[in-house]
Amino acid sequence: MRNPNALSKEDQEKLDNLTRTLEKKLEHFIGYPCNTQFDYTPLYHFLKLPLNNIGDPFVPTNYHINTHEFERNVVQIFQKLTNAPEESTWGYVTNGGTEGNLYGIFLAREMFPDCMVYYSEDAHYSVNKILRCLHVRNIMIRSNPDGSMNLDDLRETIKIHRDVPPVIFANIGTTMKGACDDLIGIKKILNDLVIKRHYIHADAALSGMILPFVDNPNPWDFKVDIDSISISGHKMVGSPLPCGVVIAKKEYVERIASGVEYVGTLDTTIMGSRNGLTPLFLWYAFHTTGLEGFRNIINNCMEVATYATNRLNSIGRNAWKHNNSLTVVFDRPSPEIVSKWQLASRGEISHLIAMPHVTQNNIDELIIELAKEQNDTKKYGNYPSTVRRSL
Amino acid sequence: MRNPNALSKEDQEKLDNLTRTLEKKLEHFIGYPCNTQFDYTPLYHFLKLPLNNIGDPFVPTNYHINTHEFERNVVQIFQKLTNAPEESTWGYVTNGGTEGNLYGIFLAREMFPDCMVYYSEDAHYSVNKILRCLHVRNIMIRSNPDGSMNLDDLRETIKIHRDVPPVIFANIGTTMKGACDDLIGIKKILNDLVIKRHYIHADAALSGMILPFVDNPNPWDFKVDIDSISISGHKMVGSPLPCGVVIAKKEYVERIASGVEYVGTLDTTIMGSRNGLTPLFLWYAFHTTGLEGFRNIINNCMEVATYATNRLNSIGRNAWKHNNSLTVVFDRPSPEIVSKWQLASRGEISHLIAMPHVTQNNIDELIIELAKEQNDTKKYGNYPSTVRRSL
Repeated sequence: MRNPNALSKEDQEKLDNLTRTLEKKLEHFIGYPCNTQFDYTPLYHFLKLPLNNIGDPFVPTNYHINTHEFERNVVQIFQKLTNAPEESTWGYVTNGGTEGNLYGIFLAREMFPDCMVYYSEDAHYSVNKILRCLHVRNIMIRSNPDGSMNLDDLRETIKIHRDVPPVIFANIGTTMKGACDDLIGIKKILNDLVIKRHYIHADAALSGMILPFVDNPNPWDFKVDIDSISISGHKMVGSPLPCGVVIAKKEYVERIASGVEYVGTLDTTIMGSRNGLTPLFLWYAFHTTGLEGFRNIINNCMEVATYATNRLNSIGRNAWKHNNSLTVVFDRPSPEIVSKWQLASRGEISHLIAMPHVTQNNIDELIIELAKEQNDTKKYGNYPSTVRRSL
Repeated sequence: MRNPNALSKEDQEKLDNLTRTLEKKLEHFIGYPCNTQFDYTPLYHFLKLPLNNIGDPFVPTNYHINTHEFERNVVQIFQKLTNAPEESTWGYVTNGGTEGNLYGIFLAREMFPDCMVYYSEDAHYSVNKILRCLHVRNIMIRSNPDGSMNLDDLRETIKIHRDVPPVIFANIGTTMKGACDDLIGIKKILNDLVIKRHYIHADAALSGMILPFVDNPNPWDFKVDIDSISISGHKMVGSPLPCGVVIAKKEYVERIASGVEYVGTLDTTIMGSRNGLTPLFLWYAFHTTGLEGFRNIINNCMEVATYATNRLNSIGRNAWKHNNSLTVVFDRPSPEIVSKWQLASRGEISHLIAMPHVTQNNIDELIIELAKEQNDTKKYGNYPSTVRRSL
């Protein structure tokens, strides 16, 4: 071990300040889909090792300081959760949603180089960047007011481009409104237009860890024959480091695999050197909380989400949420409240997400502040909506 | 905190086994460029927080649980180390070399959509994947036997394609042989051919943390007007999680920046959600070990590398290394020795890399095993070289 000189007093203070500030910020953390309830203390000793899950987790490598065995188990758990047949699908632990989505569209484009990608205006902002990166033709489809893809627009648009294979980037839970694109409707369009060559990628960042645990999930996974899916690990499972899982049909992955002598493995992942700690975190979460545990947690979250919707409506904030979603949309409050509660916002709406750490007490506190603000506004006048939109 | 049920006895054993196995493997870890001498214990408590450095580290965001302040400091340190002017360059902490290289070539392609990328056959295997991902025209250039790019081949090839802007993917320390491409020679070619529109990206994964600390560095950084550079953090600095830094000229980054209302920041990075822990690790390393500390460490490494070269040659293994490099190349041993010492290998050569944890004792032990094997081979015959090549 290198024996580091200690931090200077000034540096140590800087670090202590950070700790205090971040812990404080956590008290009002209800706007982003990151579960803060995790405890990986029993795994901290792995931070002494230069872990690196370089290469394909299902192929042995010459770099031995890895956690591939645990990564494979995590992939298998997600295969089960997404109804992905183990023998015909493959996956790995990513650095988060963007890598998983990039991977899915990369596979699609390698399969169909002349494809056209369709995605809704409610898709995550990173999709644009991914499509730009991958240099692939694409058309943004209108959304319905509830955040789902407008299938009339999709049908008319695909109709004009029937000569090229469509790649559907489907939202399973949009970022802002928690909406699921209608996969059955999308497949009907492809069927009606007799389009045999197509690819469906599901961006199930948050909902991929919700839908397996509800009674009547929207159709969303390999059961309705999607081709690949990206699910975040730091959202519902919870992790101090962004991570996720991508699962795809093996036949596509095999097209991009190439052998790498340097590390004696297959280069099937986007990143070369890969995080070996996050697979351990995910493995640990599933092997302690367990699937039944997650089902309970998500049931509780649903109750809090419904509670929040009702309370917000009781003070006239036009709150609503999708069935099977923890994302509660409501009228955008003042910049002060948006910032204090870290409420993700777009245009005239904000949302809160009833993640496992969000309590009814948090909701009550927010409601009091919102009500107070409404009273003050009645007294002192409101922002004109054009100003609010640009806030 | 979620109160996790404990691991089952079986799962706990699995985990303990992993710990033991990995610690054992570390004893013979001399083939890959990962410094194992780090200790980030004082930072472990940050693993209780849902850290996420989403968005541009230099722009405030609505997601507050981040370490942007420390990330900016790390970028500034690397700007200093690479002679990058603070006012005209920009950077962020990546998930490792691949992301940094992808980023550099992405910027280059956005600047020059009709560009041609030139890279040597000794470039890291991920470059092919990156170029395929980015859908950019490219030509692989022959290498010299020492691993550097063959400039005659480069000159002749660029000459044929003078109508499109060249993008040079320059190796500053190749993966296998530690060779630096000759940036002065490359710039002379561009000058001779009066090519004004060009882009140079430097892949300085390992050497980017060596060259700032040697007396006569090869020309490699912004002082010779490169456009972007990727340096790994988990290699010479050392980290249990792959990470790195990418620095690029601001004018290119501004072309790809787009505002994102959802998190109230700029989307200038490849990944959306980003690791907030690795910037703390790098910050901590620089603020404890310090630049003078790294200079001493690297001096010691150079001595061990020279020692290894001499010892290997004393038993006739044709060892050599580049000036300013810690990578010692020698005749490939048997699969048993390659695997035990995790020696990265290609064709008929293997290498060891004298990272800070590699000691003269390690080298002595390796030499004994190699000598023994040579004796046995004399007795029982050698592998034919065609077999060795395919091993």
